[in-house]
Amino acid sequence: MTNEKNLIKKYFLPLSKNLESQNLSNDAAIIKKSSDFVVTSDMMIEEVHFDSAINPKNLAKKILRVNLSDLASMGSSPYGYLLNIGMPNNLKEKWINDFCLGLSQDQKKYDLKLFGGDLSSSSKIFLSVTMLGKIKKKFLKSKSTANSDIFVTGNLGDSALGYILNQKKNHIKLEKQIVNYFVKKHLLPSPRLDIGRRLIGYSNACRDISDGLIKDLEDICDNSNLKATIFLNQIPLSRNAKKIKQDIEKNTNFWELVLCFGEDYELVFSMDKKKQNIFFEQNKKLKTKITKIGFFSEGSGVEIIDNKKNPISFQKIGFSHF
Amino acid sequence: MTNEKNLIKKYFLPLSKNLESQNLSNDAAIIKKSSDFVVTSDMMIEEVHFDSAINPKNLAKKILRVNLSDLASMGSSPYGYLLNIGMPNNLKEKWINDFCLGLSQDQKKYDLKLFGGDLSSSSKIFLSVTMLGKIKKKFLKSKSTANSDIFVTGNLGDSALGYILNQKKNHIKLEKQIVNYFVKKHLLPSPRLDIGRRLIGYSNACRDISDGLIKDLEDICDNSNLKATIFLNQIPLSRNAKKIKQDIEKNTNFWELVLCFGEDYELVFSMDKKKQNIFFEQNKKLKTKITKIGFFSEGSGVEIIDNKKNPISFQKIGFSHF
Repeated sequence: MTNEKNLIKKYFLPLSKNLESQNLSNDAAIIKKSSDFVVTSDMMIEEVHFDSAINPKNLAKKILRVNLSDLASMGSSPYGYLLNIGMPNNLKEKWINDFCLGLSQDQKKYDLKLFGGDLSSSSKIFLSVTMLGKIKKKFLKSKSTANSDIFVTGNLGDSALGYILNQKKNHIKLEKQIVNYFVKKHLLPSPRLDIGRRLIGYSNACRDISDGLIKDLEDICDNSNLKATIFLNQIPLSRNAKKIKQDIEKNTNFWELVLCFGEDYELVFSMDKKKQNIFFEQNKKLKTKITKIGFFSEGSGVEIIDNKKNPISFQKIGFSHF
Repeated sequence: MTNEKNLIKKYFLPLSKNLESQNLSNDAAIIKKSSDFVVTSDMMIEEVHFDSAINPKNLAKKILRVNLSDLASMGSSPYGYLLNIGMPNNLKEKWINDFCLGLSQDQKKYDLKLFGGDLSSSSKIFLSVTMLGKIKKKFLKSKSTANSDIFVTGNLGDSALGYILNQKKNHIKLEKQIVNYFVKKHLLPSPRLDIGRRLIGYSNACRDISDGLIKDLEDICDNSNLKATIFLNQIPLSRNAKKIKQDIEKNTNFWELVLCFGEDYELVFSMDKKKQNIFFEQNKKLKTKITKIGFFSEGSGVEIIDNKKNPISFQKIGFSHF
């Protein structure tokens, strides 16, 4: 592999042709006070978040999109990012080339600038992205009110199913086309930036679902001192998820997987009943599905109601690294 | 170990009591457009930048100070940071407690806020910090002119010597007090924030010495299309470094170590001859040593002149991870 300076010049400098990075000539990037900002940071570690067989182009896109999803949950617009990479010395240069191709494609897609970062050797691949987004004065808060309903964007669980079906040891036999659908949903989330911005002024609490709906909702409940009640029969599932539900249920608690695995990168948000008519009237042409799944009330915690109107609970709520 | 959410609540939330982080209740922190910013990011990886025996309090301070040094080189003032930590599941909670104590002490010392971050399990300890600093309209650039001299702050090489002496396998026998002096210089750099700010309007190129004087100077030369000439007999050494120079030279190229190892976290900067009188007149009470070590001229690359006025070169210029 060529040395550090040459790698940066060859692969990362072309991604950093912007005023803020000053062609990476300084120790830090310059951010002018043109607007308020949000700043967020997420990492992905080999053998924890992905395995070494992952396609580097997809990996690059995923680390960006995971951070973009945080911007979406704040109603913010993408601005730029810093990228820290630790990688093994024996990694092929083709890997870096493909990784940077993924960065380049998503920089264009999401109008995102590379501001700088750090490159190091490491026994395992380690990625850390810090992303800046621009916001208007109003931004999405994370405190709901008792008079609000709970909504989610898109479908839940597709990413979790993709993770399971991507494991070599899974015993579920399905058509290749269906497996590919789910694996793609796991590898390439679609951050809900447009909806996030549309929610400004309407939603009083919004998060992206990274740790599982239940855990992310619990956080909103904690912040708001409220109880959330959600209904299983209102949780939006893709056609494909409905199709394979029975197969999955042979080995796995389907609903626990859908509601607790995480990595959906959909938005869960609350909206006061009074604001819903005007919001949905104004956004009736929106292509992304928005589904009401429950409501907030006085109390605490998340209550899950099954199809027979009984409260249920799961063994493991959300992913914890420790 | 307690789970992720509890760890954050117990150890990191108390460090994040600021408006920007909103008590970590959102997916991102909010930065108001009160001034222009610089933003920089650096990482430290177990077995690459430190070994597992390192005192966690010192490790926390070092990852902050490495980033603070980047702010210093831009003439910027500390504002806040995001912290990503990957750490083994079996790490003792005492480790986290001590690590956070180090963060807390340096947050106070440098007037720094924790804005947020990410926590994950990982086979090795992985740290990534992204730091924001405030700047005035003018900031330190990295392009020198041919009419400028080259200066450094403090002494060079103490950190490199500390690294060598801290290795268990080194065969150099010295008084414990002297060893401790160097090891401390390696573990706890002192970012030159005050001098960085004073240089605004006077220096036309400034970098912090992280990769070794020669490599960092080469970067300024590249940016400026200039040649740097420096003189070994003008390189500032600590009294202790002078004392052990002969011992070190038995096994190692002393000057290569001092000029190429890096991690000094001193500033190397250039200043036009016309501005030097007024700068040094205004800063004559400055406690930190500033030493002229050479000059810029038309040409390219770094020329090193030894005590006999002969140009010399080193085998390995600066640290490259690849």
